[in-house]
Amino acid sequence: MSTLYFDSAATSIPCRQAVEAASAAIAFFGNPSSVHSEGLAAKKIIDSARKSVASALYCKPEEVVFTGCGSESNNQALFGLSKLRARRSKRIITTNSEHPSVSAPLASLEAEGFEIIRLSTKGGAIDISELESELQNGAAFVSIMLANNETGAKYDLASVRRAIDRSGCGALLHCDAVQGFLKTDDRREIAKYCDCASVSAHKIGGFKGVGALFVKNGLKMPPFIKGGGQESGFRSGTENTVGIAAFGAAAEAFNAEKLKHISELYEYTKQLILESGAEIKLNLPEKHICTILSVSVAGVRSEVMLNALSAEGICISAGSACSARKGPSGALEAFGLTKQEIEGTVRISFGADNTREECVMLAERLAVNAKRLKR
Amino acid sequence: MSTLYFDSAATSIPCRQAVEAASAAIAFFGNPSSVHSEGLAAKKIIDSARKSVASALYCKPEEVVFTGCGSESNNQALFGLSKLRARRSKRIITTNSEHPSVSAPLASLEAEGFEIIRLSTKGGAIDISELESELQNGAAFVSIMLANNETGAKYDLASVRRAIDRSGCGALLHCDAVQGFLKTDDRREIAKYCDCASVSAHKIGGFKGVGALFVKNGLKMPPFIKGGGQESGFRSGTENTVGIAAFGAAAEAFNAEKLKHISELYEYTKQLILESGAEIKLNLPEKHICTILSVSVAGVRSEVMLNALSAEGICISAGSACSARKGPSGALEAFGLTKQEIEGTVRISFGADNTREECVMLAERLAVNAKRLKR
Repeated sequence: MSTLYFDSAATSIPCRQAVEAASAAIAFFGNPSSVHSEGLAAKKIIDSARKSVASALYCKPEEVVFTGCGSESNNQALFGLSKLRARRSKRIITTNSEHPSVSAPLASLEAEGFEIIRLSTKGGAIDISELESELQNGAAFVSIMLANNETGAKYDLASVRRAIDRSGCGALLHCDAVQGFLKTDDRREIAKYCDCASVSAHKIGGFKGVGALFVKNGLKMPPFIKGGGQESGFRSGTENTVGIAAFGAAAEAFNAEKLKHISELYEYTKQLILESGAEIKLNLPEKHICTILSVSVAGVRSEVMLNALSAEGICISAGSACSARKGPSGALEAFGLTKQEIEGTVRISFGADNTREECVMLAERLAVNAKRLKR
Repeated sequence: MSTLYFDSAATSIPCRQAVEAASAAIAFFGNPSSVHSEGLAAKKIIDSARKSVASALYCKPEEVVFTGCGSESNNQALFGLSKLRARRSKRIITTNSEHPSVSAPLASLEAEGFEIIRLSTKGGAIDISELESELQNGAAFVSIMLANNETGAKYDLASVRRAIDRSGCGALLHCDAVQGFLKTDDRREIAKYCDCASVSAHKIGGFKGVGALFVKNGLKMPPFIKGGGQESGFRSGTENTVGIAAFGAAAEAFNAEKLKHISELYEYTKQLILESGAEIKLNLPEKHICTILSVSVAGVRSEVMLNALSAEGICISAGSACSARKGPSGALEAFGLTKQEIEGTVRISFGADNTREECVMLAERLAVNAKRLKR
């Protein structure tokens, strides 16, 4: 049985270019910190990948810090900014639907005495007037995701930046861009509006185990992993040459054409589901990325639907992969779904390898199971 | 020009089994947290590698936590244990020749109010009576490396454990085993004597970008990267499936036969250098692992020797790769070398792929350059 993979938001299938770059990088096995020929050859691989990722982020290569994963990037940003700004302010503004790798560090900072303001994200949008009102009391920094990992909601970084600037409170802006990176219309917005932002290789066709943190020139981001001083002192630890090489290749390969293809699949699948006549509600945010489509199936628990589809070789998810074994996160409730809707919510997420034929099969099997499994 | 690689302590050449395991793991691209077929297939890879690493550590699979690198493992252990034990004691006992990924977090804890006791390691040995005397004032934990990354000195974990137990102070024991893992005669000692220990894949023929932390059953090690709760809650972040698969394969492949081969090369090279008649001093610790041979060349600065050998295609290092761009660490001074000796110290480190013929060429070129470059 061949697999229909519609869970690219959990992790994407590594693209051909990433696999080739990784295979080639294995031969350059030196430690990039070594000053002999093997070390210098490995450093070249890292430098080249750094340029590719910087190019995709529209920032300078020296503003890209490679990390071990998107979660590490988020932890470094949040713990780092809180240290950097603790003397000025102990207030942090965020949303009520962030990824656990943002919300968990913030909960930990809250326990240490920081005040965490969680803006509502009903319908997948931030109420900018609520943000403006909170900024009047100052803030150390604001942390807002680029796109939500469960609903695909795309948040408006430009408006957030403007609100911060107008407030004059000097808050820094961090963005968890793990899901949104390369999947929005304006690729320049991350580096344009943020002071730092987290991205991850395996969401764009790279490998798991490597991420990056965009750190704006001049921002004295404290290291999270301390030691040998790699990554210009921002992140110690011997560099994951193979994963970084694949990351660079994936960032180059994830072009506008791929995004257009995915966007067409998104619209096509939406239409197919609407036309199927099954009781499936589309949870459409005000603005969204085109890789994630959240739907609620009336009267069918998500895990039941997941198992039924998995048995037919179709991979989708409930909420996010991170919450797969822990039950739903708060993001769907924050979006405004009812308890019943949340229980029946599944996430369809598209990748560059998906085809229209696969979308037809997915929509059909989703509709058939929606009718069959309804209690 | 073919390369003679004698810098395996900086990073090892990935072994065939690791490369094959990584290549095979690329196809299992799912997110190990996903509950569908692709996720479960990826989880199987992780589970299998965990068993292999646990087997090499002589511990239970659930005691192995995969991390992003050895430095991350050390940071997690030190910051985690300090949090866990802060109410009981704010004293930490360590040595004066730890790796920067241990000494830097400890310096950071010192700035936060912890008292850090740094035991002397003259000649590459810990004075157990000094440790016993310090333990009388209690300690939150002790952190001692298994083997030094610059001198190869092998520290005596059994005696450290006995001293802790005799003191009755209840201190926990962490070991930075990154250099020593699989390179000592008794592979059981890490799990037998330590409460937690850090290891890394790329020092034993695996890939850079993946490490592990041994966490003894029952030890409530706080997470360092917080978020999705992967690795039984000990380490969040999507797992580096490819790197972890290679780690498992490398741990299995680094057997006693490989170690015996390396040990013979060590003794052979030592003999060749002694017989060369060049003014080269062997910095031999009391006890040592057989992968690292530190030598001091009279009157030749290490960077000059490194560059001369690198131009001939021979890769060795001064001190460690981490210190390559930052000058010597304190480990050589702690060992008891003079300033002149430190300036002329280079590290030869052996891997399973090295041959006796290569050792002959290395010793010859080292001797020739020692005479030629002497000021």
